[in-house]
Amino acid sequence: MNANNAQPAAVVLLSGGLDSATCLAIAANEGYACTALSFQYGQRSVAEIDAARRLVTTYGADHRIARVELDQFGGSALTDKSRDVPETPSEGIPDTYVPARNTIFLSIALGWAEILNAKSIFIGVNAIDYSGYPDCRPEYIEAFQRMANLATRASVEDGRVVHIRTPLLHATKSEIIATGHHLGVDYSNTVSCYQADEIGRACGRCDACRLRRQGFEQARIPDPTIYA
Amino acid sequence: MNANNAQPAAVVLLSGGLDSATCLAIAANEGYACTALSFQYGQRSVAEIDAARRLVTTYGADHRIARVELDQFGGSALTDKSRDVPETPSEGIPDTYVPARNTIFLSIALGWAEILNAKSIFIGVNAIDYSGYPDCRPEYIEAFQRMANLATRASVEDGRVVHIRTPLLHATKSEIIATGHHLGVDYSNTVSCYQADEIGRACGRCDACRLRRQGFEQARIPDPTIYA
Repeated sequence: MNANNAQPAAVVLLSGGLDSATCLAIAANEGYACTALSFQYGQRSVAEIDAARRLVTTYGADHRIARVELDQFGGSALTDKSRDVPETPSEGIPDTYVPARNTIFLSIALGWAEILNAKSIFIGVNAIDYSGYPDCRPEYIEAFQRMANLATRASVEDGRVVHIRTPLLHATKSEIIATGHHLGVDYSNTVSCYQADEIGRACGRCDACRLRRQGFEQARIPDPTIYA
Repeated sequence: MNANNAQPAAVVLLSGGLDSATCLAIAANEGYACTALSFQYGQRSVAEIDAARRLVTTYGADHRIARVELDQFGGSALTDKSRDVPETPSEGIPDTYVPARNTIFLSIALGWAEILNAKSIFIGVNAIDYSGYPDCRPEYIEAFQRMANLATRASVEDGRVVHIRTPLLHATKSEIIATGHHLGVDYSNTVSCYQADEIGRACGRCDACRLRRQGFEQARIPDPTIYA
């Protein structure tokens, strides 16, 4: 995919999980030349980066892996190995919340979008089957869009803005899986588990595992997840 | 400075330049327990990080240095050494603009602010004697604030928000210098030059050097800048 053909460019945030894999499939299906952006942020599960690598190969996308040391912060079960990943649903925002994570990821995606002259940034946030994270809510995404509209060189020089696209925002997990299945996503190439082992096997007990398993059941699509 | 006393906490973005040094002095003078946050982002001048280290010592502030590889992007004379730093004023946004830089820096500061339970983030942006960067404008900062108000755990759980403080936003460079001088800032510990040499000597020709020199002249305060 090069910049000389007529395809518009998109930056797709790709964790390697089920939602972001579906996002990549949607963006590619819409005809975007995709640059997938993954983060090494000190997360517990490094298998998700390997999953992201497999996914971009499928879609012929460019792939950038950015390092941001969010484990410097501490304060989250995902980046601080002295904390346990919760295995029972909790009231309120769970300990897997990483401070300002989506804000930081979207900001770095915005930088890439400026450089690539991308029309859109795709992010697989979801406001239904999610874990209560503040930075997955529609009102948060709208506010990020308004900020981004004022942040870039192109917005000042010729009024062009980068669109933050959230195609999964109002979908249930089973609807996301059905969409991806229809688009040919191979979900065996994705890792959702917060504490997957090195080769990507899931724990089956964390929030992410429970939502994923339930999604496949409700979508009546065989679940290719391998559990440890 | 520890979290057990009555001081409110602040994160202060500290590049090591004149503006951010003045911001740190203002925050400290307001009684904040300051955590200074500097970035190694692949910038041309590394002397500014050394300057930041000297400044935090003066104020007894904590200091965090975060690495973000914005030089992966390219696209700016500050992070791409194959481009020359412009030495004549340009029309429009100059080549020293780094895509989404303030958005990325403020986002990471927001993460730290969540962890530290900080009341404020100080950033030394300036809408008068600046270089035309989109992410230094008041409307941009206001939009970032509105986004931040929806982004954090505390904003959801108990309505607390982190205030983005921009005490220099409407000041001229000479007013900034006069304020800092009054607060005892030792400007010989700061580096503004976009292409300072390894020991922090300024080129005297880039935008940042010209604005700084003019500021000292107009403030009628001796300029301690050492030129190469």
